[in-house]
Amino acid sequence: MSVEPINDPETLAAVEAAFDAYERALTTNDVPVLDTLFWNSPHTLRFGATENLQGYDAIRSFRAQRPGKGLVRTVVDRSVTTFGADFAVANITFARTGEVRVGRQSQTWARIDGQWRVVAAHVSWMDPS
Amino acid sequence: MSVEPINDPETLAAVEAAFDAYERALTTNDVPVLDTLFWNSPHTLRFGATENLQGYDAIRSFRAQRPGKGLVRTVVDRSVTTFGADFAVANITFARTGEVRVGRQSQTWARIDGQWRVVAAHVSWMDPS
Repeated sequence: MSVEPINDPETLAAVEAAFDAYERALTTNDVPVLDTLFWNSPHTLRFGATENLQGYDAIRSFRAQRPGKGLVRTVVDRSVTTFGADFAVANITFARTGEVRVGRQSQTWARIDGQWRVVAAHVSWMDPS
Repeated sequence: MSVEPINDPETLAAVEAAFDAYERALTTNDVPVLDTLFWNSPHTLRFGATENLQGYDAIRSFRAQRPGKGLVRTVVDRSVTTFGADFAVANITFARTGEVRVGRQSQTWARIDGQWRVVAAHVSWMDPS
């Protein structure tokens, strides 16, 4: 079954490295790297805190015009799970200065042509319960 | 490459059916069906509008105590993408009476022991931009 093994060490290490590269690029607003790490497809989707973007082109346009300030954040909890050799989910909670709410980021990663890419993402601030 | 084909018709139909079953169960608060549709694993994760849940047991406990009212919603946009025979992402935006914000739900599905299960989910209300 291709969803197994779960968290094969080599696959997990590769996804953790891709996740780290994404986090560095995000907090430094390294737009070319962020663009590279998303799957170049009309199927790619990103729900952001204040925007819903369908398709790689919409995501790229958003990145290109986003102010590069205020993107620094502190990862609080991190959970990466890999399935087989080609698929993974990466979820974090995070804190940002000036925002009292808990941030959450979910990514689904797939290994496409040998490279790990984000195929769907969702970022939000949690409502108080 | 096991992430291909993208949106194989048979796989897509199976995931769409699983998604529909989830949506029906959610809006009618059919907890046993919801429990069945989530992967029974400590790796399963669900970020809800007001809670962050790690592990199948935490998700099941949350479902068991959630009031069954106010769960009806209208799906506005829907995007399902399948990868190979065993992985998929399903994303919707939705509206709920009494809530002015746009709702978003992201799910990652995997076919485990022949059954489609949600392995990660994220639900949120979008902030005004």
